[in-house]
Amino acid sequence: MTASPFDHPFLSGLLGDDEIAPYFSAEADIRAMLSFEAALAKAEAGHGFIPAEAARRIAEICAGFSPDLASLRSATARDGVVVPDLVKQLRAAVGEEAANSLHLGATSQDVIDTSLMIRLKAITFLFAGRLSTIAAGLDGLDRQFGGNRLMGHTRMQVAIPITVSDRLNAWRAPLITYRDRLTEQNFPVQFGGAAGTLDKLGAQGPAIRASLAQELGLTDITQWQSGRLPIADIAGLFSSISGSLGKIGQDIALLAQMGHEIEIAGGGTSSAMAHKQNPVAAEVLVSLARFTATVLSGIHQSLVHEQERSGAAWTLEWLLLPQMTMATAASLRLAGELVGNIRRLGTA
Amino acid sequence: MTASPFDHPFLSGLLGDDEIAPYFSAEADIRAMLSFEAALAKAEAGHGFIPAEAARRIAEICAGFSPDLASLRSATARDGVVVPDLVKQLRAAVGEEAANSLHLGATSQDVIDTSLMIRLKAITFLFAGRLSTIAAGLDGLDRQFGGNRLMGHTRMQVAIPITVSDRLNAWRAPLITYRDRLTEQNFPVQFGGAAGTLDKLGAQGPAIRASLAQELGLTDITQWQSGRLPIADIAGLFSSISGSLGKIGQDIALLAQMGHEIEIAGGGTSSAMAHKQNPVAAEVLVSLARFTATVLSGIHQSLVHEQERSGAAWTLEWLLLPQMTMATAASLRLAGELVGNIRRLGTA
Amino acid sequence: MTASPFDHPFLSGLLGDDEIAPYFSAEADIRAMLSFEAALAKAEAGHGFIPAEAARRIAEICAGFSPDLASLRSATARDGVVVPDLVKQLRAAVGEEAANSLHLGATSQDVIDTSLMIRLKAITFLFAGRLSTIAAGLDGLDRQFGGNRLMGHTRMQVAIPITVSDRLNAWRAPLITYRDRLTEQNFPVQFGGAAGTLDKLGAQGPAIRASLAQELGLTDITQWQSGRLPIADIAGLFSSISGSLGKIGQDIALLAQMGHEIEIAGGGTSSAMAHKQNPVAAEVLVSLARFTATVLSGIHQSLVHEQERSGAAWTLEWLLLPQMTMATAASLRLAGELVGNIRRLGTA
Amino acid sequence: MTASPFDHPFLSGLLGDDEIAPYFSAEADIRAMLSFEAALAKAEAGHGFIPAEAARRIAEICAGFSPDLASLRSATARDGVVVPDLVKQLRAAVGEEAANSLHLGATSQDVIDTSLMIRLKAITFLFAGRLSTIAAGLDGLDRQFGGNRLMGHTRMQVAIPITVSDRLNAWRAPLITYRDRLTEQNFPVQFGGAAGTLDKLGAQGPAIRASLAQELGLTDITQWQSGRLPIADIAGLFSSISGSLGKIGQDIALLAQMGHEIEIAGGGTSSAMAHKQNPVAAEVLVSLARFTATVLSGIHQSLVHEQERSGAAWTLEWLLLPQMTMATAASLRLAGELVGNIRRLGTA
Repeated sequence: MTASPFDHPFLSGLLGDDEIAPYFSAEADIRAMLSFEAALAKAEAGHGFIPAEAARRIAEICAGFSPDLASLRSATARDGVVVPDLVKQLRAAVGEEAANSLHLGATSQDVIDTSLMIRLKAITFLFAGRLSTIAAGLDGLDRQFGGNRLMGHTRMQVAIPITVSDRLNAWRAPLITYRDRLTEQNFPVQFGGAAGTLDKLGAQGPAIRASLAQELGLTDITQWQSGRLPIADIAGLFSSISGSLGKIGQDIALLAQMGHEIEIAGGGTSSAMAHKQNPVAAEVLVSLARFTATVLSGIHQSLVHEQERSGAAWTLEWLLLPQMTMATAASLRLAGELVGNIRRLGTA
Repeated sequence: MTASPFDHPFLSGLLGDDEIAPYFSAEADIRAMLSFEAALAKAEAGHGFIPAEAARRIAEICAGFSPDLASLRSATARDGVVVPDLVKQLRAAVGEEAANSLHLGATSQDVIDTSLMIRLKAITFLFAGRLSTIAAGLDGLDRQFGGNRLMGHTRMQVAIPITVSDRLNAWRAPLITYRDRLTEQNFPVQFGGAAGTLDKLGAQGPAIRASLAQELGLTDITQWQSGRLPIADIAGLFSSISGSLGKIGQDIALLAQMGHEIEIAGGGTSSAMAHKQNPVAAEVLVSLARFTATVLSGIHQSLVHEQERSGAAWTLEWLLLPQMTMATAASLRLAGELVGNIRRLGTA
Repeated sequence: MTASPFDHPFLSGLLGDDEIAPYFSAEADIRAMLSFEAALAKAEAGHGFIPAEAARRIAEICAGFSPDLASLRSATARDGVVVPDLVKQLRAAVGEEAANSLHLGATSQDVIDTSLMIRLKAITFLFAGRLSTIAAGLDGLDRQFGGNRLMGHTRMQVAIPITVSDRLNAWRAPLITYRDRLTEQNFPVQFGGAAGTLDKLGAQGPAIRASLAQELGLTDITQWQSGRLPIADIAGLFSSISGSLGKIGQDIALLAQMGHEIEIAGGGTSSAMAHKQNPVAAEVLVSLARFTATVLSGIHQSLVHEQERSGAAWTLEWLLLPQMTMATAASLRLAGELVGNIRRLGTA
Repeated sequence: MTASPFDHPFLSGLLGDDEIAPYFSAEADIRAMLSFEAALAKAEAGHGFIPAEAARRIAEICAGFSPDLASLRSATARDGVVVPDLVKQLRAAVGEEAANSLHLGATSQDVIDTSLMIRLKAITFLFAGRLSTIAAGLDGLDRQFGGNRLMGHTRMQVAIPITVSDRLNAWRAPLITYRDRLTEQNFPVQFGGAAGTLDKLGAQGPAIRASLAQELGLTDITQWQSGRLPIADIAGLFSSISGSLGKIGQDIALLAQMGHEIEIAGGGTSSAMAHKQNPVAAEVLVSLARFTATVLSGIHQSLVHEQERSGAAWTLEWLLLPQMTMATAASLRLAGELVGNIRRLGTA
């Protein structure tokens, strides 16, 4: 039941990522959605909008709640979003008194988009670390082999000799940029209510949103429910990362093909040819780069987002962004492994 | 662990497809790969290439074999493909005598591509049936409401009145074309050996390939391991189907928005507005159409397939085609439901 | 004023095509649109729908008409299509009596889509010829060098030796398929009137459309103004052609990089390195393949075509299809040149 | 000879942009390339690398040079780039003494990429101004109609009433972000020599590059000839701008379809229906958004850039970026016109 290679029983060994995948489990999503509801109640209580007791009760229930997944699934089929049923189940759990204080002034998109941002924030922190590790690996290669000679190639032809340092610099430069961007990336809370106007919260809306953002460790900005630039920005960054790692993969595959300027440990077996050592990771970096480049187009299609909320454009993001993230994760993992497996670069 | 909405505990209620998903399970893939190995042994025995006894033994083992999945996963991570380890496990299972007769003259790509074609053939049979059902549903609406008046719209503006029949004809025409194309679609066996030349089978190669194809119910064509037109053709057809269903969805969403010319049963709940009935299926048809349109681009990128086999281009297909198929399945399912939920079209 | 490399004063030397470009000139489009109006008048007169004299007068004017281009340009800016102003200019030219018989029952889309099909039909005839030439060139190489040894490569690594014939077969097979498909491709007339219902022609509509199609040498099918499969089919075919030629280009660039298995005449100069011979055509085949793969996605986006006519989806086609065609033309031209420049393949 | 709607005799009225198109003329490109050569000579003379007299002579010739375009075209066909022939023509013009000082240490990509950046810098300055004008137009609408009632829509269904201000805020917010990003965007010089190592300039390379950047008003960064993030960044920004304007267009087309909440002046004529007023600009904003979203994918494909310079990936940029820029220009122009044509929004 696994059309996705990122979650596949055996393909995920190649294309998945054990550290990042859990952030896209239903459990992680639900946990983040519950933290939204708890934080919202706390923020609303803090501004005297709901009773403190209700917020306490909501937080308590959210901390340990396990929703009925079968019900969530059939409700998502009907409603197009999971939130109405999740909120219904939660309301039953918190009891009559607190029920009305739950999800007050919020809409499905607030919950889902914020859950995504909570998880993307955690993920990009890990991505930044991986970029540092890869850059450090390249630094190590530079110290060892930087002075070696490498034949420079332009237009796939022999050009002039360069040093291994020259090539490594070209590989490393964008990675440092990405790490810095990931570190500086804002992850905004989404909170707008039914039509983005926080209509039920009156003048206190922005203050409650600010408290909510602070509670969740997210940036406080005006609702972006129909203005999907935060999504396009992150997707563009992920695709750029994966693209630059794809360039490294392509270069390594070409080095391996020509043979004498690189030595790599690891590498794949062939079912037909016992003598082969395939530079699998290098090639898959190219696949993943082309994958994220492809799906980025769909993310930008979803910038054409009708009116106050487009079901079509929003659902399109769900079909694309988690997978872009997983592909970027796999790229970072494979690039790290590949750099670690390089035993020699260039010729002395 | 489910970045993919097609396999997600709750999103799959909306975006998945219970009938088609099993074809992309690891189990189904393995079963189809085992049927390749059994059929190959049978074909090779039939041409006196391996002992009949070995083929019998291989068929017996393949019928009931359950590979060690954890081993397949780590081997795929190393080799980039699952087949070397699967074959290794199988060889151990069939025993020393038959081991050398297993997978003889074949390569990983033969097994994986053929497994895909076996399953796509079964899937497109189901798709053709669904298209017929949708077309029949449109026929039924035509009988009931065909004479009703509908306001024609061009460039999103009121144009001139048309009949409901006129609109239904525009919806139905491509579906009939697709059903016919699915029915006529060829699903070729892939069999080329290490570099596509069937080098180990000598002059008997083509005859063995023909027997293999016949055994598996596939079309016999020369290997297409680096010529991926069969993949591009099917992907283009799936994206076209999903695109035309997206047009129906968009039209229905616009009808629902204007309100008086359509009545639909079902429809989604809102967590913020109790009065709303969202045309969820209609909108999601648009999402799925934009999804398949997006990823089709990646399939065509993989036509640039280096030399005798490109790991990069081939892996890119794995990242895209199963999901395109699932998206098309969900489109067909949702379109069927949506058409079935239409209670009135046009005005008398 | 030439953002497009296909029409650029110097880039078109590399990326343009002198034989195909004229089909996308404004003049060719206008000429084809005028032939639509003349043929429509003739068909309508043939069915007694307008006076024969009016049809004669319209044909006479259409044969030599040169519209005011500045007026067409500003009218297109206003109307989103060129036809209303073209028809207005034509009506003035044919005189009061025939004016009402001109464009009778037709709409802008009928004229524009049919003009496109008239030109695509001519273009694909030329494309089929080029494919034959390239295939013949490959046949010639096969006769000369087919028995030579070539190192087979899989996953960008040395695999097992193959023959030059093996490689050439992989290159040639899809080209033959494409040639046959181009030859069998239908080019339908588009004729539907304001909302696709031929509302002004009553029961005679289909008969007039059939005559119109015959007059223009196109296939008679029901209007496809909101069902854009004919466009998606042609675009898919063009992208497949360009993709398979990109595979040839990539293979040749890799052969040239490794050096000893290919000799090519021609090739580019470098401004920095006098010793270089760049395999320019081979690389540009890859660029063009990735270009058509990219834009194919947009063509499939435009299958989501609202209601009776979507200005948005239709205009998107104008932004993409002519360029896909030009890219395919350039691919075919460059592939022909490249194959012709191969002086040796493989080693004896 | 105009496959591109951006440069088309009549389609450019709708899809072109008279202010931006000249930046993509061959003349503008050549002028910018000549300014690179003059500035390089000046920088090299400033560092004592070539005689001051040679630099003076080069500057003088570059100021008024008109190359032989036919020669450039055929040379581009041969070399894949225009620069070798341009430099050859220039060397002949500057005379024997200065000839060796011309283009010293530079390569084709230095000239072409830097010419692009010079022009993109000028273009984004104009884009920023247009964004300000559109935002000011939205401000004006807000002052006039901000308090009016507008029916909020989510999932294409009536949701709850909002104000016109609410909708205008959603339209305006991303535009302000884009204007700020355009203003802060860096436009780097590209200078790396044959293989990116400034091999001919020795230790003085970076200092000469810094002088060159300063002379041209560009940012001084290490060569990015195989690291195409600067291109991907600008393309992503353009696609985002066009996407957000597409959202405005889609919203306006939907408002126009429903009819009573908007009044727009201008709008298109229909050749079939005299009563129609088509919201042409609104629809075309959607087309352009989907166009840039589509081609952005190709730009990210070209991040997989082989070795020191990929002819394939680089040429792919030429096929895409100028057109993305033109599409963004047309979006900005049309959005400005459309906002200016709104006579009423919402109901009092």
